[in-house]
Amino acid sequence: MTVRVPHRVVIAPSGFKESLDAEQVADAIAAGVRRALPGAVVFTAPVVDGGEGSARTLASATGGRVVERRVTGPVGDPVESHFAMLGRTPVATALVEMAAAAGLRHVPVDRRDPTRTTTYGVGELILAALDEGARRIVVGCGDSGTSDGGAGALVALGARVLDRDGRPIDTPGGAALADAASLDLSGLDPRLAEVEMVVGCNLTNVLCGPRGVARVFGPQKGATEQQVEQLSDALDTWAGVLEAAASERGVGGLDVRHGAGTGASGGLGAALAVGCGAELRSRFEVFLHDDLGAPEIDAAIAQADLVITAEGAVDYQTPRGKVPAEVARRAKLHGKPVMALAGSIGTGAADVHDIGIDAVVGIIPIPMELAQAVEQASDLVAQATERALRLVVLGAVISSAA
Amino acid sequence: MTVRVPHRVVIAPSGFKESLDAEQVADAIAAGVRRALPGAVVFTAPVVDGGEGSARTLASATGGRVVERRVTGPVGDPVESHFAMLGRTPVATALVEMAAAAGLRHVPVDRRDPTRTTTYGVGELILAALDEGARRIVVGCGDSGTSDGGAGALVALGARVLDRDGRPIDTPGGAALADAASLDLSGLDPRLAEVEMVVGCNLTNVLCGPRGVARVFGPQKGATEQQVEQLSDALDTWAGVLEAAASERGVGGLDVRHGAGTGASGGLGAALAVGCGAELRSRFEVFLHDDLGAPEIDAAIAQADLVITAEGAVDYQTPRGKVPAEVARRAKLHGKPVMALAGSIGTGAADVHDIGIDAVVGIIPIPMELAQAVEQASDLVAQATERALRLVVLGAVISSAA
Repeated sequence: MTVRVPHRVVIAPSGFKESLDAEQVADAIAAGVRRALPGAVVFTAPVVDGGEGSARTLASATGGRVVERRVTGPVGDPVESHFAMLGRTPVATALVEMAAAAGLRHVPVDRRDPTRTTTYGVGELILAALDEGARRIVVGCGDSGTSDGGAGALVALGARVLDRDGRPIDTPGGAALADAASLDLSGLDPRLAEVEMVVGCNLTNVLCGPRGVARVFGPQKGATEQQVEQLSDALDTWAGVLEAAASERGVGGLDVRHGAGTGASGGLGAALAVGCGAELRSRFEVFLHDDLGAPEIDAAIAQADLVITAEGAVDYQTPRGKVPAEVARRAKLHGKPVMALAGSIGTGAADVHDIGIDAVVGIIPIPMELAQAVEQASDLVAQATERALRLVVLGAVISSAA
Repeated sequence: MTVRVPHRVVIAPSGFKESLDAEQVADAIAAGVRRALPGAVVFTAPVVDGGEGSARTLASATGGRVVERRVTGPVGDPVESHFAMLGRTPVATALVEMAAAAGLRHVPVDRRDPTRTTTYGVGELILAALDEGARRIVVGCGDSGTSDGGAGALVALGARVLDRDGRPIDTPGGAALADAASLDLSGLDPRLAEVEMVVGCNLTNVLCGPRGVARVFGPQKGATEQQVEQLSDALDTWAGVLEAAASERGVGGLDVRHGAGTGASGGLGAALAVGCGAELRSRFEVFLHDDLGAPEIDAAIAQADLVITAEGAVDYQTPRGKVPAEVARRAKLHGKPVMALAGSIGTGAADVHDIGIDAVVGIIPIPMELAQAVEQASDLVAQATERALRLVVLGAVISSAA
């Protein structure tokens, strides 16, 4: 009787928000794999999605560097922020993670009002990337705390948002866009014309309409029901302004209101597309592409016996474009089994079986508080991986029994 | 390609203390098995070890009944207690679970002083079992809060513990045994001579010496270091008294000080052996025997593809005679794979792999408090079982892949 246990294992996790970055999660999983399957060949491919942690992780993975900058935070107070100059790229490439300047984490809980928060700091990061000589700027969306249609970022880059009397609206939050009448792009930093800009985002996010960004994300950014409607109306107005500006600039083919990705990070996608000619692309197409130094995950998956992914929380949101969903999608193209580790297994986690995740593994061994789990996350991930693989081996043994 | 997944599954869990009894745990596991393996043949065998919950579980499992009785609790206050009259037994059999009268749970945390707690209530339960017509009394040990050498129980049954001046010591706690000089058994309830008494206990527990019950269990019952030595000395004195009584009664062959099981439940084993002629037997030999209505677990295991056991906590204590250890031991006689679910996975849990448990499965899906885990235990067990079996199936799939 021969027991075939997994030999080639691909480890492609997300980071665990506010706990471990994707590389640390991958390392912890690898430690667990090696304990349970001493002979296994392990291929680690930490996956970033452009959200929180992406810049640091990709800087490290590509042998690039992190550039620290203090910028204007989402509520107007300065925040310590950063972007990455990536290593091993054909042209000088900056990764600007919008969450590093305007993420929800930078909005104090008692000030979570997306009618007022601004992406101004994102524009400042882009300017800093230009100062560092970037010829290509990749903007990572995700985990934003803003809903200003990207107006703040454009203002920081030199644009002016004007009201019907031609007076500029300074660093407007989302609500102020109700007064926007036109967008003056003449003062934009001229270097922007020379760089390629790509926005890596979730393409299902659109600026306007019933599935528009105010309605879908407003509440989790702290908007009341009334504020959601206020924001939704203001973003409709802003969409008209962007449409006019696009037409003036001769930017064709973009559906500002309902185009894929226009709603990314509270409308930042639409603003950068119109203002900077940015291309809006699927975040995984961008961040799992080898020109960003991403490991060749598809080739590795094709050779794998088992694919292990992970995320801080596996729940009803996981199938909606989260890292484990993307990893599972790619694994299923090759018919490979997928296991997902989860810092927490939330409501609707069982739905992930429909998108190709065969098994979900929790990491929490005993009743404990979140803070403790966060602190011990690396050990917990390694131990849970080992325990899970013991079950996999057990299954292999049963399958092989005469 | 044929994927062989587990078809015959034996479910043999312990109860989860202060949460679910063994039958409830077994039912929850079965629910999870049926969800993950719809065609599986499930054999449930809830396992009791004589400790907390045993009487109710076996009463239910055998179609017997629970008899409620208020007795003297371990700190002297009355407690609501009970014993079981088992169904389907050849002779009228009572199961007296000592923990129901004198368990640690009945000792308020601020009164945990094993130099004073008493097994008097256990004697009262035995009398009540005689009143109910029991011809055979099985005493289950485990989870005790006492260390009185069983003196309290003997006094309740009519014996007298006398000091050197021949004065009786009433309901003595462990420390008072330092003054014991002789044991007068003449007043014992005469019905005891007519019944068979069996003590089901952990045979590794002995009354005296460096591994004696005061030293091994005193601290977890609340004794200070000084109290441990005081108790140890008092139990040495008590052992001498019991030896004299045994020799008077012509009870031969029992090593009161170091005989297997003499230290069970703080020395209750030794007292019942000497005073009532009770036989001290391995708890699993007693409680997994079909004459107590236990399911024929060994025959089921012989046919099984997978054995699932469970306990509230899997940790360094598990290999020391806990239910999962016994289930694994029996499973390994037939070379069967064993998975153990755990309400919590504690320090040293990995040691269980050495005793035949192939994989340990935690039930906690998210950071949560113990109280919440206890409240939701049944659902958590079912869901964890399902998740674990998905990993087993995944292993079977990998093993079967070309």
